[in-house]
Amino acid sequence: MRIAVDAMGSDHGPAPIVAGAAAALDDLAGDVGIDLVGREAELSALLAPHRLRTGDRLRLRPASEVVEMSDPPLLALRRKRDSSIRRAADLLAAGEVDGVVSAGSTGAVVATMTVVVGLIAGVERAAIGAVLPARRGSILLIDAGANLDCRAEWLVQFAVMGRLYSEVVLGVVEPRVALLSVGEEGNKGNELTRAVFARLSAAGVGFTGNIEGKDMLSGRADVVVCDGFLGNVVLKLGESLPPHLFAVIAEEVGKSPIARVGMWLARPALRQVKHRLDWETYGGAPLLGVDGACIICHGRSGPRAIRAAVRMAADFVSGGVKERIAVSLKGVA
Amino acid sequence: MRIAVDAMGSDHGPAPIVAGAAAALDDLAGDVGIDLVGREAELSALLAPHRLRTGDRLRLRPASEVVEMSDPPLLALRRKRDSSIRRAADLLAAGEVDGVVSAGSTGAVVATMTVVVGLIAGVERAAIGAVLPARRGSILLIDAGANLDCRAEWLVQFAVMGRLYSEVVLGVVEPRVALLSVGEEGNKGNELTRAVFARLSAAGVGFTGNIEGKDMLSGRADVVVCDGFLGNVVLKLGESLPPHLFAVIAEEVGKSPIARVGMWLARPALRQVKHRLDWETYGGAPLLGVDGACIICHGRSGPRAIRAAVRMAADFVSGGVKERIAVSLKGVA
Repeated sequence: MRIAVDAMGSDHGPAPIVAGAAAALDDLAGDVGIDLVGREAELSALLAPHRLRTGDRLRLRPASEVVEMSDPPLLALRRKRDSSIRRAADLLAAGEVDGVVSAGSTGAVVATMTVVVGLIAGVERAAIGAVLPARRGSILLIDAGANLDCRAEWLVQFAVMGRLYSEVVLGVVEPRVALLSVGEEGNKGNELTRAVFARLSAAGVGFTGNIEGKDMLSGRADVVVCDGFLGNVVLKLGESLPPHLFAVIAEEVGKSPIARVGMWLARPALRQVKHRLDWETYGGAPLLGVDGACIICHGRSGPRAIRAAVRMAADFVSGGVKERIAVSLKGVA
Repeated sequence: MRIAVDAMGSDHGPAPIVAGAAAALDDLAGDVGIDLVGREAELSALLAPHRLRTGDRLRLRPASEVVEMSDPPLLALRRKRDSSIRRAADLLAAGEVDGVVSAGSTGAVVATMTVVVGLIAGVERAAIGAVLPARRGSILLIDAGANLDCRAEWLVQFAVMGRLYSEVVLGVVEPRVALLSVGEEGNKGNELTRAVFARLSAAGVGFTGNIEGKDMLSGRADVVVCDGFLGNVVLKLGESLPPHLFAVIAEEVGKSPIARVGMWLARPALRQVKHRLDWETYGGAPLLGVDGACIICHGRSGPRAIRAAVRMAADFVSGGVKERIAVSLKGVA
C-alpha cells in the first residue's frame, strides 16, 4: 500500500507536512510507503533533519506548481496541471498509490479528485466527512462542505458512506445515523430534509431520525447527515466557539488576581479541555465517494494532524471502505 | 401604551411569567400598562404575593385554553380559539394593546400572529430575530426559525427589518448587515445566498457582504441574515455549546484536587463568563413583520427574561419599529 502526501499548498508551506509524513512512516507497517508530492529540491532539503532517505518506503514525486488557497478550484484544475494536488490525484488514478492526503485548498482537492480520479460506480457526489468531538467519543458530520446545493438522494448516499467510514475507520459498532434538522419529528424541517427523512427511513442504514442543533454534540448519533452548505456553516461555527469561550474566560479571569491564581492551578486540566474540544485534533476529513482514499486536512495543519491523516488514509484502504461503499450503495439504490 | 403578556403555555406554567410581568411594571413609564392573558383564577392567585392589584396599569384578560408545546401550530390556531396566545393576538388586532409577549410554542405564536394580526403592508413573511452574545455586544440573527424554506426577496426584507430593530431597540449606530454563508466572496454559497447577495448589494441596507460561521460571533456584523432553517440549527447549536464546554471543564477539573481548588477560586469570574455566554439572557426574540410588536421568549424563561422581553416590546412600540419597517420596505421594493 502507498499513500501520496501533497506536500505543498498548506498555509505554512511544506515543512509541517514533511514532518508529519516522516512521523507517519514510523506508525505504518513496513510494507506501507509514502509518496511526497511537491517541489523536489525543497522537499529534499526538508527531509535531511528527519534523517530520512528516499527509497522504497519514501519516494519524492515532482510537481512544480502550487494551488493557492485563493485559486478558484476549477481554474486550478484546468490551468495548474503540474500542481502537487493534481500530481497526487494522477498517481491515485494510475493506481500507483492507494490514497491521498492533502492540506491544500479544499475546493481544489474536491474538484481535482472528482475529475481526475472519478467517483465510485453508483455515487452521485463526493462528500466531506468531518470528525468532531462529541460529549463522548466523536461524531462524523457529512457533508461538511463539498456540495452546497443538494438533492435528497445525495444525502441518502452520504448517510451510507458516512456510516461505513464511522464503522470501519472510527471503529463505531452499528453507527446511529441522524439527519440534522429543526425538530425531531419527520414532518419538521425544510423541503430537502423532509424528503430525505422519508428516504432514510426506508433505506435501512441505521437511521434514528432527525437531530436538532442542540443535540448534535450530545452523542445521540454517530453520523450526522446534512447538505454541505449547512454542514460547512455548522463546522466553522463550532470550531470558533471553544476559542471564543476561552477568550471570554481569559478576559473575566484577568479582572481578579484571585481568579488568576485559581486558573493557574487549574491549568493542566484546562489544557486537557482545550485538547478534547479542539475540532481540529482529528487529523483530517475523508472525502467520501471518490474512487480511492482521500483525506483533506486543515490548511493550518501541523505535523500531528498530518501524521493522523496518513494513518486515517491507510485505515481507509486496509478496511476496504471504497469497496464496501460500492456494495452498500447497490443495496440502497 | 399597553403590552399583552401571554401568561400560559410556557414550560413552567404561569408563575414565572406573572413574576416577570410584575417586575416589568416597575420598569415601565406610568402610562404603560400590562394585560395578563390566561386563566383568571390562577393568575389572580399568583398576583397576591407581588402585592399587585388589577386596575388601569394591570388588567387580567380571560383565556380558558392553553396551547401546549406539542400542539401542531395550525391546529392550535384553528381549534383553540380561547387560548391565551389567541386572545393576546385578538387584543393586538383590535388595537386594545400595542404589543404581545409570549413564552408559548414558537410555531403557534408565529402562525397565530401572522393570521390573526396580519403582516405590515409590503412584508411577505414574518421572521424571528434572535439576539445573541458576540465577542463585544450582541448580534441579531434573522430568521431564527419562522421560515424553513425561503425565497431570496424574503431574506432582503429580513435584512431591512433586522437592521431597523438593531438600530432602534438594540441601540446600534448604523448596523452592519451580513449574510451567513460559506465564503466571503459573493459567488460563494448556495443558490439562495448567491441570489440574496446580489439583491442585498443593490438594496442599500448597510450590507457588508458574506460572513462565515467562524466569524459570526466575532462582532464583525450586527445583523446576520439567513433562512430560518439554517438560523434555527445555528441558534440551537450555539445555545448548546457553552453548557457542553462547561460540562467538559467540570469533568477534567474533577480529576485533580488542585484544579478543583483553582476552579473554586475562579468561581466568581466563571459565573460572569456563563452569564456573558448565555444565549438566553437577552429576554426574547422579536417576531418582525407582523403588524404590531411581538416578542417571543424561550419556553423555559424565568422572570428576568420575561421582564426584559416586556421592556423590548415597549421599546419596539415607542421606537416606531413597525412604522419604520413599512417606510423602509417601500424604499427597497
